[in-house]
Amino acid sequence: MPQRARLARRLSVEQVEEGLVLAPKFGRDGLIPVVTTDADSGEVLMVATMDAEALLRTVDTREAHYWSRSRQRLWKKGATSGLVQEVVDMRIDDDQDAVWQCVRVRGSGASCHVGYRSCFYRSISLEPGEEGRPIALRQEEAARVFDPVEVYGDAPNPTRL
Amino acid sequence: MPQRARLARRLSVEQVEEGLVLAPKFGRDGLIPVVTTDADSGEVLMVATMDAEALLRTVDTREAHYWSRSRQRLWKKGATSGLVQEVVDMRIDDDQDAVWQCVRVRGSGASCHVGYRSCFYRSISLEPGEEGRPIALRQEEAARVFDPVEVYGDAPNPTRL
Repeated sequence: MPQRARLARRLSVEQVEEGLVLAPKFGRDGLIPVVTTDADSGEVLMVATMDAEALLRTVDTREAHYWSRSRQRLWKKGATSGLVQEVVDMRIDDDQDAVWQCVRVRGSGASCHVGYRSCFYRSISLEPGEEGRPIALRQEEAARVFDPVEVYGDAPNPTRL
Repeated sequence: MPQRARLARRLSVEQVEEGLVLAPKFGRDGLIPVVTTDADSGEVLMVATMDAEALLRTVDTREAHYWSRSRQRLWKKGATSGLVQEVVDMRIDDDQDAVWQCVRVRGSGASCHVGYRSCFYRSISLEPGEEGRPIALRQEEAARVFDPVEVYGDAPNPTRL
């Protein structure tokens, strides 16, 4: 069966918003944003993207797959690090252009390539700042869960300026 | 002071990942994805986008502002519906290209234009489906919190096919 047949065509606003078939809207780049939260703590671990193949593989295997924009390829989370994300719940939003999945992370439980549990390890200050100075961040996770050099070796850092 | 000076220039991977100044990366469209969760339940309410102005207004007012892609303009959440999102915590991710904010929603507490509490009111079935049929969804919120016709009147539906 063509994998694409598993994603319904988008026929009407009513079908998309109220229907009970998956009819996702991918952007012009073929990608859909995905929020991944920890099934136990509720914490947002990361925001990433999936293409149609990554979405279908995630549904079929219940292990999170993404489209890596920095590496421009399908990316099974944990393939290098062992920090596989087991999907326990997956949601689609009203207009079906965003995915939310709840996961349990294997191993040390971390999801961030910098070594923290969540990628969102810094908060944005909501206090009025100093005139002419950039808005401050505050470190929220005290320490790394793993050493990225040990886990990823000399693989290129995915962060792009 | 030019508002833009409140966002630092991105100078190095180390600064972006480990620094304590806000240096967000907007996409080519000038937008950054934002995940909004309920500060009390932890539930993901919506995924949307901000441009620089929406981000700064949110920080300054502690009320969520977004860039509406369907209406192509700054959008203060709740301006029409009264369902204002009060921001209690705001985070930035490792490479500073995604925002996570925790909010308390005024009024009925709903955030979805279809009338549900969360935009993610349907789950994606992870059970093997019927051959040749699209993947099924399941309704997770039993009932609407508000009637969208009553709240939005004849304002155009933002869902796009």
